[in-house]
Amino acid sequence: MKRLPTAIANGPSILPTINQRRLMRDLNAIGRIGIGERGAVTRLVFSVKELRSRQVLIHLMRQAGLKIHIDAIGNIFGRYDGTDAKAPAVLAGSHLDTVVHGGKYDGPVGVIGSLEAVRTISEHKITVRSPLEVVCFVGEESSRFGFSTLGSSLIAGEVHAKDLANAIDAQGTKLADVLSSLRITQRNLHSLQREPKSLKAYLELHIEQGPILEAIGKRIGLVTSIAAPSRFRIIFTGQADHSGTTPMNMRKDALVASAQLIEFIETICRKYGSMEKGRVVGTVGAIKIEPGVINAVPGRAELSVDIRSTSAKSKAFVVRQVKQNAEQISRKRGIKVEILTIREENPVPLNNRLLKITREICKQKKIVYEIMPSGAGHDAMQMAKITPAGMIFIPSQRGISHNPLEWTDPDDIGLGAQLLMETMIRVANEKF
Amino acid sequence: MKRLPTAIANGPSILPTINQRRLMRDLNAIGRIGIGERGAVTRLVFSVKELRSRQVLIHLMRQAGLKIHIDAIGNIFGRYDGTDAKAPAVLAGSHLDTVVHGGKYDGPVGVIGSLEAVRTISEHKITVRSPLEVVCFVGEESSRFGFSTLGSSLIAGEVHAKDLANAIDAQGTKLADVLSSLRITQRNLHSLQREPKSLKAYLELHIEQGPILEAIGKRIGLVTSIAAPSRFRIIFTGQADHSGTTPMNMRKDALVASAQLIEFIETICRKYGSMEKGRVVGTVGAIKIEPGVINAVPGRAELSVDIRSTSAKSKAFVVRQVKQNAEQISRKRGIKVEILTIREENPVPLNNRLLKITREICKQKKIVYEIMPSGAGHDAMQMAKITPAGMIFIPSQRGISHNPLEWTDPDDIGLGAQLLMETMIRVANEKF
Repeated sequence: MKRLPTAIANGPSILPTINQRRLMRDLNAIGRIGIGERGAVTRLVFSVKELRSRQVLIHLMRQAGLKIHIDAIGNIFGRYDGTDAKAPAVLAGSHLDTVVHGGKYDGPVGVIGSLEAVRTISEHKITVRSPLEVVCFVGEESSRFGFSTLGSSLIAGEVHAKDLANAIDAQGTKLADVLSSLRITQRNLHSLQREPKSLKAYLELHIEQGPILEAIGKRIGLVTSIAAPSRFRIIFTGQADHSGTTPMNMRKDALVASAQLIEFIETICRKYGSMEKGRVVGTVGAIKIEPGVINAVPGRAELSVDIRSTSAKSKAFVVRQVKQNAEQISRKRGIKVEILTIREENPVPLNNRLLKITREICKQKKIVYEIMPSGAGHDAMQMAKITPAGMIFIPSQRGISHNPLEWTDPDDIGLGAQLLMETMIRVANEKF
Repeated sequence: MKRLPTAIANGPSILPTINQRRLMRDLNAIGRIGIGERGAVTRLVFSVKELRSRQVLIHLMRQAGLKIHIDAIGNIFGRYDGTDAKAPAVLAGSHLDTVVHGGKYDGPVGVIGSLEAVRTISEHKITVRSPLEVVCFVGEESSRFGFSTLGSSLIAGEVHAKDLANAIDAQGTKLADVLSSLRITQRNLHSLQREPKSLKAYLELHIEQGPILEAIGKRIGLVTSIAAPSRFRIIFTGQADHSGTTPMNMRKDALVASAQLIEFIETICRKYGSMEKGRVVGTVGAIKIEPGVINAVPGRAELSVDIRSTSAKSKAFVVRQVKQNAEQISRKRGIKVEILTIREENPVPLNNRLLKITREICKQKKIVYEIMPSGAGHDAMQMAKITPAGMIFIPSQRGISHNPLEWTDPDDIGLGAQLLMETMIRVANEKF
């Protein structure tokens, strides 16, 4: 094993500082691609705008002197060589695609933050043992095809032909057709998978997309695990009736049945929301009723339910309770109920060792941090399947995300990138 | 005063019986106009189909030897002369227009039932003192222009220029423009009003459109009053948030707030639903939420509320309670609430004397009847403003109406028409 470079050996205090102005400049340049009314950013995967943002990134990586590799789907890797040519790489990155009318930080903060970290290392000629790679994954958002973390899933070998069957956009374009135009077919779906041995770790800087850090006044979140959703549709079928002529006790109102369930979901999740371990959140995000006119008792209601937790056990318990409650309401009211599972995923624990390293750096630098789970899904959740993965959160103002009002203080973005840089250096040099 | 004709003087037992087969034949002939998939009938006011149904009625009235008068809007009156040329007329009728995808009985049962009553009287050469008039009102349903009981409101002098301002159909046609093509302008809106002195009474045979008669096994409902709706929109504005990253206790979920209110409306109306006097029904018939996607906490919810009672006092009490509850939920959850009144109408009591007459006939004929309010609105509610008005209900199978499954037993239709005929004769001959 080679000797550690002086900068590291002497402790983090003498490490260089990332260039926050340059970081914000590039982040804003990306943010202007696909910008529309009221500052809303729309860069759907494989759209012209999204492709342009990738072009800009390639240009920036080239300027920084990174060695660029682009795989078949379009995932971009910008490499900074380490002293050990055979050592596995330390990856850091995120995504550049957005939801419809989103903000400019969800994704780009991680991509440009990693770039800033690596180019600071490069311009200060810091040597590291393992190579560093800045990565931009294609299609993290599910907004276009209803398929999330596309690029990182392919890297992790987690995309299967059956998953693609229903992936289709609003214009009727099939994801499978887009892939086959890129020469990715059912047969070679796993050809993009990256050899786990070539990877030492994956790190992702991301905005929290929730209100916790701001509320508790902390600037950094160190992520323990990524919550997974159970998603299902609940359909109550009662009887549509005249709102004036049907006595209250002769109704089979599908909306009142739904109302009881909606309240129950809040109550049971609030109960579990107070427990530190196994915290569960539950949401009815969509409701459609029929006939849906002011003078008719609703005869049918369809609810979309999303329940998440970092504890598979707690989540399964709450899901079971919610389904049982729906059945109870159905029996009590003489209303039919149908429950259709949309998605059932397992929570993903992140790497403890990486968390410990970031925590040590925070302590040394006196950064106020919070150890916390991630409620939202990220590319890290796919990468965790093939390599140790870690995430660093920075605060979202008012918790707002997927919205033009998404905002994070530039100083917090800078601090996140600095922490990412120091973590990358330590991981690249330490035995792992 | 002339002497009563023998048929009446000797009691109802010797009155002729209406021709149920002929009644059903004509009712079915009307029901085939505008029929579509699965038997759904659509005859929107002023549509080609609705005009054709009026043409058929004019033809049937002519066959029956009635004197026909059609006013500017298209209300049709078929007159059978009484022995006293100056006596005010006894009117009976309903409407031929339907909702979109409705049934064949809501309206036509009253029009063809009255026609059958009068033609039975005519062919048996029964003389009556007051003239009898079969009437078909234009546009009872609000389905096209959002304006209900159009024809009868004009007859009652109850249409005002401001009421027409927002009456517009889905194709952008303004009701005011349709009226002006019929030479009904803002200036002569009241010219269709019928002189109250020319009217002795108005009777309307109608399907119940509710489940009560069927449930209690009675064949005739005698209507005491017509419930009026209070309609309002309640808008909760909370905060749209990520469903995965927002802890339960930091949410401002507009849908959970709505769910609480929906349950409250059911609870308070159930409480009042059990009281015989001042029964109240309350319905949330429509709900729209935003953003309305599975992975977002709903930030905005808009509810359409319809509360009805035949007691203005009970209705006002419940409406006040519901609004107070909405404010309470708003305060407790830190969610904004806005309440917009759509419509505020007073219940319409029907004529006691007419009810007594129909009840006497029922008793004599041993017909099982129920004294009941009407939850739905009818032309009778406008006519009540200018003349004594009464209504006879017949059962609706499963309470279904405004639906192709709307169904009433032909024997009940026949019984209703018979009762109507006997009532018309008595009212025409009695001092009133």
